[in-house]
Amino acid sequence: MKDIQLLGATGSIGTQAIDIIEEFPESFRLKAVSAAHSVEKILTILKRHPVDTVVMHAEYENKIKSVYPDVTFLSLENDGLIQLVKTDKDALVLNALVGSVGLPATLETIAQSKDVLLANKESLVVGGHLIMDALKSSTSELIPIDSEHSALKACMKGRMTEDVETMIITASGGSFRDYTLEDLKKVTVQDALKHPNWSMGDKITIDSATMMNKVFEVIEAHFLFGMPYDKIDAIIHRESQVHALVHFKDGNVLAHMGPADMRIAILSALQGSKVHKYRTLFDLAKIGSLNFEGIDREKYSLFDLGLAVAKEDGLHRATLNKANEVAVSLFLKGAIHYLEIETLIKRALHAFENEKNPTLDTILAHEDAVEAFVLKEAKRR
Amino acid sequence: MKDIQLLGATGSIGTQAIDIIEEFPESFRLKAVSAAHSVEKILTILKRHPVDTVVMHAEYENKIKSVYPDVTFLSLENDGLIQLVKTDKDALVLNALVGSVGLPATLETIAQSKDVLLANKESLVVGGHLIMDALKSSTSELIPIDSEHSALKACMKGRMTEDVETMIITASGGSFRDYTLEDLKKVTVQDALKHPNWSMGDKITIDSATMMNKVFEVIEAHFLFGMPYDKIDAIIHRESQVHALVHFKDGNVLAHMGPADMRIAILSALQGSKVHKYRTLFDLAKIGSLNFEGIDREKYSLFDLGLAVAKEDGLHRATLNKANEVAVSLFLKGAIHYLEIETLIKRALHAFENEKNPTLDTILAHEDAVEAFVLKEAKRR
Repeated sequence: MKDIQLLGATGSIGTQAIDIIEEFPESFRLKAVSAAHSVEKILTILKRHPVDTVVMHAEYENKIKSVYPDVTFLSLENDGLIQLVKTDKDALVLNALVGSVGLPATLETIAQSKDVLLANKESLVVGGHLIMDALKSSTSELIPIDSEHSALKACMKGRMTEDVETMIITASGGSFRDYTLEDLKKVTVQDALKHPNWSMGDKITIDSATMMNKVFEVIEAHFLFGMPYDKIDAIIHRESQVHALVHFKDGNVLAHMGPADMRIAILSALQGSKVHKYRTLFDLAKIGSLNFEGIDREKYSLFDLGLAVAKEDGLHRATLNKANEVAVSLFLKGAIHYLEIETLIKRALHAFENEKNPTLDTILAHEDAVEAFVLKEAKRR
Repeated sequence: MKDIQLLGATGSIGTQAIDIIEEFPESFRLKAVSAAHSVEKILTILKRHPVDTVVMHAEYENKIKSVYPDVTFLSLENDGLIQLVKTDKDALVLNALVGSVGLPATLETIAQSKDVLLANKESLVVGGHLIMDALKSSTSELIPIDSEHSALKACMKGRMTEDVETMIITASGGSFRDYTLEDLKKVTVQDALKHPNWSMGDKITIDSATMMNKVFEVIEAHFLFGMPYDKIDAIIHRESQVHALVHFKDGNVLAHMGPADMRIAILSALQGSKVHKYRTLFDLAKIGSLNFEGIDREKYSLFDLGLAVAKEDGLHRATLNKANEVAVSLFLKGAIHYLEIETLIKRALHAFENEKNPTLDTILAHEDAVEAFVLKEAKRR
């Protein structure tokens, strides 16, 4: 039985993680959950699971305690996520937070030598160097929960990074893959949220359309597998059935396939070496055709921009991440146009200096400054 | 440095094995070769490699000894292959013989607890039960050299058979994949030898057109990986870039890809865990599209027939193999028509009784009887 502390229990990954926990009650037990504001969803979870700790904004304490007086309530205002991962040394921490708010919790989990199942992309994107450093003096295992990195991990099982020629992650091309550059000038939020293959959160659906999500995944792969950036590539694969490939130096190529169902990656991360039977259908004869093409660098201009920032390394990964996060959120609110996401990111990269090996405090303070800058720039237009 | 005894040095696999040995002279050394009649090819090999033993028909002894007096010559007539594998305990045996003549050498290699790199399909097809039995009291490792089984082995690295839902091998569909049943009535030997993707020996090219090759590979996979027949399937994949897939019970699917180049499988078998750098090009964006379809059971009627024989188990695997071998050889000589291959196989299966767990002697005597029967039937038409 594995006990699980689920950070970000009410989002897309959190909800699907709970699906898996409920499917295998003999293997997994949900012990702690966090959410920002979705108190009704948390109450529903508490009804069905033996959760002993809840982390939310302080305003929800009374509501939770009035129904579940025995549950420990930790507030986000009082570093509740950090407090949480310090408890229950044997529990796994599944970090499904969205945004760089997930990084301190990831670092603390590693400091506690607890295994961290990481769906929070930003932890590695902005703090990959800190995480890799922290892992050196920890017995934590860092297990990716992301279809591409779960796929890479599957391909790498029993194999060594030094034997890899190239790692390739696939991209669906997102909501606008069939749009021309001209078309992109007229797109709406509703258009952008129509992802062709995956059901995901809103922010990542936009990141998928801009290809920024793939930049983040290249950065994650760089840190997770210790691969230099010039040995990681991305390719457009419209069907989202092949999630990643590894080309080995001896000419062998392994690919990981499967339906576009994040629960497979979640189960793979949770189960460790004990393979659970999970009903899925994957019939290549029915699928018929798998198609691949290079990424159009003009149309997906954020891809090369993002990779350049990644290779440059340092604090600008946080500039990129935060400027993107704020710009996407403005786009989702209808405050800016789709193509302005890139404009705002470029302005932020231009406005701030890069810095090598930033500390956690530097990163967090920097992201606040980037957020303020992007909000101001957006108003200035 | 690995020393290699190469059985069947002048055929398609033997020649490509020598390519690999020559590419990595610091890792592999050719110590012994066998051939039936290709004495000129053997003399060329002797010029370039430190071979100390040659096995051929006795008639070539003088020719070999006159140029290489220090080479040990063993004759096929005097059980030369068996004698050979009994020497040099540390050498690997690469069995690239064609036909069930390869089985006794495989069994003797296992009896000697030497590792056997098996490209000789018939060893497992007719004698899989004997090989699996022999491996129980041996320290031999049995390593497949076949693109599909090498692919399955790569997908299974670090994983357990009990965690597999299905193993799937791919088939190009062979030379006649775009022919109708009606078209097949008119095909010639020249048509049949035009394989769309692979450069292989004549016999296997015909087996690929009839799908008998895939039957053999299903049988091999059954024995190599201990998979029940109902968990092994084949699928037509026209581009021959995906060689096999393994569906695991948890929804993960691993596929092995790569160019249609047997040398990758040969190198993989030879090198063990030390990955060698082998120049290959594999660019999915260039390939563009990978297509898959089920096998048309009417057109490839030998596939279901063969699988039924496989599931029935026993001596009829040898009936199937030998009747096919003789019929294909008659077809290649222009003595029978393409569609008569199946007719002759069916007659042989009808004429002989099946028998469970046949001994080696029973199998070899039986194959002689099947050969005589098929030759007689072919004349009777």
